[in-house]
Amino acid sequence: MSARKLHLNLFVYPGGHHEAAWRHHGTDPTRLLDIGFYQDLARSAERAAFDSVFFADGPSLADNVRYASRFRLEPFTWLSAVAAATERIGLIATASTTYTEPYNLARLFASLDHLSRGRAGWNIVTTGAPQAAANFGLDAHPVHAERYDRAREFVDVVTRLWDSWEDEALVADQKSGLFADTDRIHEIDHAGRHLKVRGPLNLPRSPQGRPVYVQAGSSEDGRAFAAAYAEAVFTAHQTLRSGQEFYADVKARAAALGRDPRRVIVLPGISPFIGSTEAEARALHQEFNELTQPEYSLHLLQRLLGLELSADELDGPVPRSLIETRGERGNGSRFQLVLDIIDREQPTVRQLLHRLAGARGHRVVAGTPEQIADEIQEWFEHGAADGFNIMPPWLTGGFDLFAEHVVPILRARGLFRTAYTGATLREPHGLPRPAAPVPSKEIA
Amino acid sequence: MSARKLHLNLFVYPGGHHEAAWRHHGTDPTRLLDIGFYQDLARSAERAAFDSVFFADGPSLADNVRYASRFRLEPFTWLSAVAAATERIGLIATASTTYTEPYNLARLFASLDHLSRGRAGWNIVTTGAPQAAANFGLDAHPVHAERYDRAREFVDVVTRLWDSWEDEALVADQKSGLFADTDRIHEIDHAGRHLKVRGPLNLPRSPQGRPVYVQAGSSEDGRAFAAAYAEAVFTAHQTLRSGQEFYADVKARAAALGRDPRRVIVLPGISPFIGSTEAEARALHQEFNELTQPEYSLHLLQRLLGLELSADELDGPVPRSLIETRGERGNGSRFQLVLDIIDREQPTVRQLLHRLAGARGHRVVAGTPEQIADEIQEWFEHGAADGFNIMPPWLTGGFDLFAEHVVPILRARGLFRTAYTGATLREPHGLPRPAAPVPSKEIA
Repeated sequence: MSARKLHLNLFVYPGGHHEAAWRHHGTDPTRLLDIGFYQDLARSAERAAFDSVFFADGPSLADNVRYASRFRLEPFTWLSAVAAATERIGLIATASTTYTEPYNLARLFASLDHLSRGRAGWNIVTTGAPQAAANFGLDAHPVHAERYDRAREFVDVVTRLWDSWEDEALVADQKSGLFADTDRIHEIDHAGRHLKVRGPLNLPRSPQGRPVYVQAGSSEDGRAFAAAYAEAVFTAHQTLRSGQEFYADVKARAAALGRDPRRVIVLPGISPFIGSTEAEARALHQEFNELTQPEYSLHLLQRLLGLELSADELDGPVPRSLIETRGERGNGSRFQLVLDIIDREQPTVRQLLHRLAGARGHRVVAGTPEQIADEIQEWFEHGAADGFNIMPPWLTGGFDLFAEHVVPILRARGLFRTAYTGATLREPHGLPRPAAPVPSKEIA
Repeated sequence: MSARKLHLNLFVYPGGHHEAAWRHHGTDPTRLLDIGFYQDLARSAERAAFDSVFFADGPSLADNVRYASRFRLEPFTWLSAVAAATERIGLIATASTTYTEPYNLARLFASLDHLSRGRAGWNIVTTGAPQAAANFGLDAHPVHAERYDRAREFVDVVTRLWDSWEDEALVADQKSGLFADTDRIHEIDHAGRHLKVRGPLNLPRSPQGRPVYVQAGSSEDGRAFAAAYAEAVFTAHQTLRSGQEFYADVKARAAALGRDPRRVIVLPGISPFIGSTEAEARALHQEFNELTQPEYSLHLLQRLLGLELSADELDGPVPRSLIETRGERGNGSRFQLVLDIIDREQPTVRQLLHRLAGARGHRVVAGTPEQIADEIQEWFEHGAADGFNIMPPWLTGGFDLFAEHVVPILRARGLFRTAYTGATLREPHGLPRPAAPVPSKEIA
């Protein structure tokens, strides 16, 4: 048995990750707003001893909601209700440092961590969608570097808010009448370039001290941020080589900042189509691709690449020359990833759309349970992954197949645990509970 | 049997409403951050067929947390976990129009309403605590009138966000591939004095359309706001006469705006000490008062009245001449209420502190179950209340006694229902589900 164990998260997307999942007969579209559906899913993931369930988020409506289930479930409310239906699984909420108030966000996470008894994780994002700005009174979306600058200050501020109550501050001694030792509760008195916050927070320090820090940007700014702050990194790679490059880079950057690289776990996304034969799995994948709508995917290409194409160009080659240079795109690393697919595979437009339909640029694999397990093992043992975000093509079936057929193989190979070893989300990550108050760190 | 039925809410405060509740042997202070404690409480209130559980809130820490359990549970996370443990009871979250972003708040409420299947209510507040400003980058707390001006615009904006998806917008037709009819999803394009928000919201319209609107300010601005927007009004009165004056005033104001006054229900707070004899109830109340700490209450007097007193003045009269004139106090109506107590009862400082210790100015009654029921019935039948916010002095015992001993009497008298009659929070309030899109209203 290998001492190092895989980390597995269930990345939940309403309806599933394949853009056409909601149209498939395996999906019940009437349950997409039913909390019971997500509670059931989280209970399944908990039975499989997954590290966490993870919800993406963004504070605006995707205009391709016409063609796919691209509304947004608000993560804190949703995960709190999921917490109430589970005991051990981690709960990772995506929350924007661009469009939230740090005091409000600090309260939401501290409360989620309290009510889940230490299972909260924060996927720290800067909001990429430019249309979000108009929902928050801004005429223009802040540029990429500016958003990361605010993100660093934001994380520093909320961390200090979480640490503003020392662990010993809550006394609650009925006899003496001392409820909270206010000498152990501290204002943070932050006044920086973007934020001004006095504190302290209005509730006691939470079981984990603070949520586990997750980060998902793979741009230059994103990697620097991950190296400085992240305890887990979500990332998208199409090839082992690209995964290895990223893995080595993030670990080296973390080490250069004096951090233990093992405490920054790297988790690529993987969206598995599983069949009892490879042919069956490929046919299943094809079944989903045939339900896609070109209008949806052309929109995605336009957004990712600046490519304006019409439906009658679907069976021609991707016009490489028409792709806009990167400029101020929100999602530069995803842009590069799509360019790499085009260069490597020379697909037609339709083929490219199908490549992206599965999981928006994340890796889609189709195969037998053994083949999926082989892929996972290969990346895990060859320096590309400490684990994976499992992105089921559809829900719940796409996850059920993984839990029933792939997880047992991973266990039989000694790669994945059979039960939880601790009560909080910190424990599978090998993360100690941070002491408070942690002095604020200045990160370049 | 009277056709008109009482409305009863359980107003939850960590530890209970009496300032010394957490010190009493009936309270377990180790459970104040345990979600299971609040879930149990909500299940008890649901068994009693209460309209709702209600959480107060504010985005800052009360400095008297040294002496009492005055931290703040974040309402959305907490109520979402309570929703998961209950089926029918309403869930009223307090949320500030002063220190939140309307887009974020609209999402939290829409999600709470979705996951609870239509049980959300919003206690609309302007934040009164001046120290909150410093947690949100402001040098000064906005003045009272300014906060209400923003509140009106804020409610208009979030209402339009909730209505930005027509009910028919969510199609989810697997066959045609139309997930959302984007012709039925509308930008709100709001640009006002305080807020600029484009919309639309990023999730479908919720079961109730929007949360039930509750309001709790009793100042002139507060009453005008309640008359225009509120579907339920929380209020504090010490005497039947004061309750009647307020009740008549709010109903008349609503009628003057063309609203049906029956659709604005008035719910004073009441904090009951219950004993098998009146003497036993009074002794119980005294037991709690003896656990109070003068430092806590003197702080409250300072905050409410501007009175700076020391512990050696406790047994003298309240120095009426030292009370600051109202000026720019956040809580003008509560100020007046305390002045009225002083004028009516001529208490010593200690007596006044004990009067306020029960429920921060809300009415405290001590008596047998019959006496408590009599008080409730009197107010209900004499134009002072459509129901009550029950504010248990301590938890869970203070609520259990009410549910076990007072509720059956109210039922026997035909004043309170024996079971829920509908599935959403709108139904006990007799409120129809609002149509969408509702044209925005301009309210003076």
